[in-house]
Amino acid sequence: MKDFFKVTDLDAVLALVPDFLKVKTETVGLITAVDRVLAADLTAREDLPGFARSTMDGFAVRASSTFGASDGNPAFLNIVGTIVMGESPDFSIGRGEAAKISTGGMLPEGSDSVVMVEHTEAIDETALEVYRSVAPGQNLIEKGEDFVNNETILHKGCRLRSQEIGLLAAFGSDRVRVYKKPVIGIISTGDEIVPVHETPGPAQIRDINTYSLSSLIAGIGGVPVSYGIVKDDYDDLLAKCTLAREECDMVLISGGSSVGARDFTIDVLSSLPEAEVMVHGISISPGKPTILAGSQQKAIWGLPGHVVSSMVVFHMVVRPFIEFIGGQARQGSQTRQGSSRLRLSARLLRNVSSAPGRIDFIRVRFIEEDGQLWAEPILGKSALINTMVKADGLIAVGINSEGLERGADVSVMPI
Amino acid sequence: MKDFFKVTDLDAVLALVPDFLKVKTETVGLITAVDRVLAADLTAREDLPGFARSTMDGFAVRASSTFGASDGNPAFLNIVGTIVMGESPDFSIGRGEAAKISTGGMLPEGSDSVVMVEHTEAIDETALEVYRSVAPGQNLIEKGEDFVNNETILHKGCRLRSQEIGLLAAFGSDRVRVYKKPVIGIISTGDEIVPVHETPGPAQIRDINTYSLSSLIAGIGGVPVSYGIVKDDYDDLLAKCTLAREECDMVLISGGSSVGARDFTIDVLSSLPEAEVMVHGISISPGKPTILAGSQQKAIWGLPGHVVSSMVVFHMVVRPFIEFIGGQARQGSQTRQGSSRLRLSARLLRNVSSAPGRIDFIRVRFIEEDGQLWAEPILGKSALINTMVKADGLIAVGINSEGLERGADVSVMPI
Repeated sequence: MKDFFKVTDLDAVLALVPDFLKVKTETVGLITAVDRVLAADLTAREDLPGFARSTMDGFAVRASSTFGASDGNPAFLNIVGTIVMGESPDFSIGRGEAAKISTGGMLPEGSDSVVMVEHTEAIDETALEVYRSVAPGQNLIEKGEDFVNNETILHKGCRLRSQEIGLLAAFGSDRVRVYKKPVIGIISTGDEIVPVHETPGPAQIRDINTYSLSSLIAGIGGVPVSYGIVKDDYDDLLAKCTLAREECDMVLISGGSSVGARDFTIDVLSSLPEAEVMVHGISISPGKPTILAGSQQKAIWGLPGHVVSSMVVFHMVVRPFIEFIGGQARQGSQTRQGSSRLRLSARLLRNVSSAPGRIDFIRVRFIEEDGQLWAEPILGKSALINTMVKADGLIAVGINSEGLERGADVSVMPI
Repeated sequence: MKDFFKVTDLDAVLALVPDFLKVKTETVGLITAVDRVLAADLTAREDLPGFARSTMDGFAVRASSTFGASDGNPAFLNIVGTIVMGESPDFSIGRGEAAKISTGGMLPEGSDSVVMVEHTEAIDETALEVYRSVAPGQNLIEKGEDFVNNETILHKGCRLRSQEIGLLAAFGSDRVRVYKKPVIGIISTGDEIVPVHETPGPAQIRDINTYSLSSLIAGIGGVPVSYGIVKDDYDDLLAKCTLAREECDMVLISGGSSVGARDFTIDVLSSLPEAEVMVHGISISPGKPTILAGSQQKAIWGLPGHVVSSMVVFHMVVRPFIEFIGGQARQGSQTRQGSSRLRLSARLLRNVSSAPGRIDFIRVRFIEEDGQLWAEPILGKSALINTMVKADGLIAVGINSEGLERGADVSVMPI
């Protein structure tokens, strides 16, 4: 029998994430910074807002002037002015006085609250009836209520969502320091692979993996760079791999699942500068033949050639490495920071079996019934892309498990 | 008391979605098509794969030649050749014969299965011992097993994920017909608003909404176009709005929450070509003052000026309109097609109260404890952006509810 390679557990593979080098940083315009990763902690450079602002249309008053007011017993106030939006009022409010104010207007000196216009009636230009009392601070936001000067507002490593972009705008940061997008090289290998625009011969297939992997990389904020198709030849693969390693922050070699090709890949990876083959097989299915080598703190992956296997390995293994070198902080919560690490709770619709000693990743489709989310396993060979097209997500069946029964609670990673 | 506008229920607003015009289509290169929306049904133009392929390294055989084989009683086969990757074998396999094959290799005429190399031992160049029997069809994929010629492979309106991109590559579609990205104009209004790069005066604030809304639009596959800041002036707003309506597929006017500004906006919207103000207030909070007008089948929105309100209205109200005009099919399942409509099940960490007669959208933060996902309500005024920065998602408290109790099951939309 043929010797088989010694596999590494997934946890041990993921523990290697911090061994690799983060990308450099750059400054980008705020309008294009969504989904980028912040490269430094940011602190408030001023109070936000810089002045007390009304949150309602109405009248700025001293709250004490309205105490006890009701429909039957209104408070009578003198209207002493109108606050112009965007301008600092040049008058102040005393006891028994009111000034007309719009949402967002600056409260005048002496006022501490706003009566909603719906709770007032102006008798004439200068006389106002108020039908509800207000408390000090009501219907306004105080100076510095959103953020106080010198407060830390965002942490290095956070992925900028729309609200973080809005926050930076509020502080006038129209440019922001972020990590560069990690550049990921893709080399597709195999004597049977032809470019997508060619018609395959009788024993050939088109290059799927360059496209599926490029989309996956772009989808998590990386920049895919294709190095085309390399036939199963040591010198060609070494030349392409050397070039890709120099030009990119990480390299994915797809294909080479066959024993001969795998041997090529190992030989090539071992020939790179300061090379170390760190992983040669992972105890997962699909994806067992995955290879990881380090070369001068850059990760070079040998991914399985089957389309499903390479996508599953990307989601479950490669992605945390790309997120790390791209500067993304590892969140305490798996659900923080948008959808990148979301998991959905569902119940398993049918039994699935699994071999102990490895983690099985099962493709599932969602079915909603009476408010319950079910995950239906999609069975099928890992060379069949239709199983991924039908799938909404992946579930893991643990390394010590022989399977899961219908009705089991499962955690689904959307794909 | 001031007359208040008559509000529309959210369901009735969302029922207006199909009234608007879809964008046109374009052809794009496959490598950039991820997350785009397919503009036509696609059918298979050939069988996939086009030939029977091995899924293992081993030997192509007739299964019947291996029946009864075991470690103690191996089958003896003659090795008649080696299958070269990417080439059609020029020999066939008879009873008692085997040919060496790699993963992805084409099965020769006469063979119907593959014995894994681990279950064999080659005695010499021509003699093979086989220690396991295989069934016909084992360790291979049949011609057409993934997709059959003329089968519908993808439906119009589907959002292309990495696996769909891979599928199109498999069929040689290096260009694909998709809907154009909807172009969404943004006009920020308010006399108190200054551009982000300016230092605000004492009663002024920077333009946040152009940035937060641009990011939201880009995040769902639209193209944001900023028309800058318009002071509260009827003629200026009409001119900008007319231009934006001509150049874009939809327009968002942000600001104008104050009664006077709202009146401006209504007047401006009513002056557009074939204008109809369809919604003037929605029974939601935040977001009640939202306005929707149609003009020649384009939607023009008046959004609240408060940063939180405008973002919540975008997520809950505007987004389905953009998805519709962008060609996206409304899926049966809310969880299909990537993360755009995902909801997470969680339990509420604290009581929240709500006013009946409207839907309240509550910002929540996720907390994970002992495998249970909790949603902690984040209270705070809708003018405070820090409440959105702290939030991971939104929950809805129904129109007939007075609130939700701690422990209630809630469905969280990630933001």
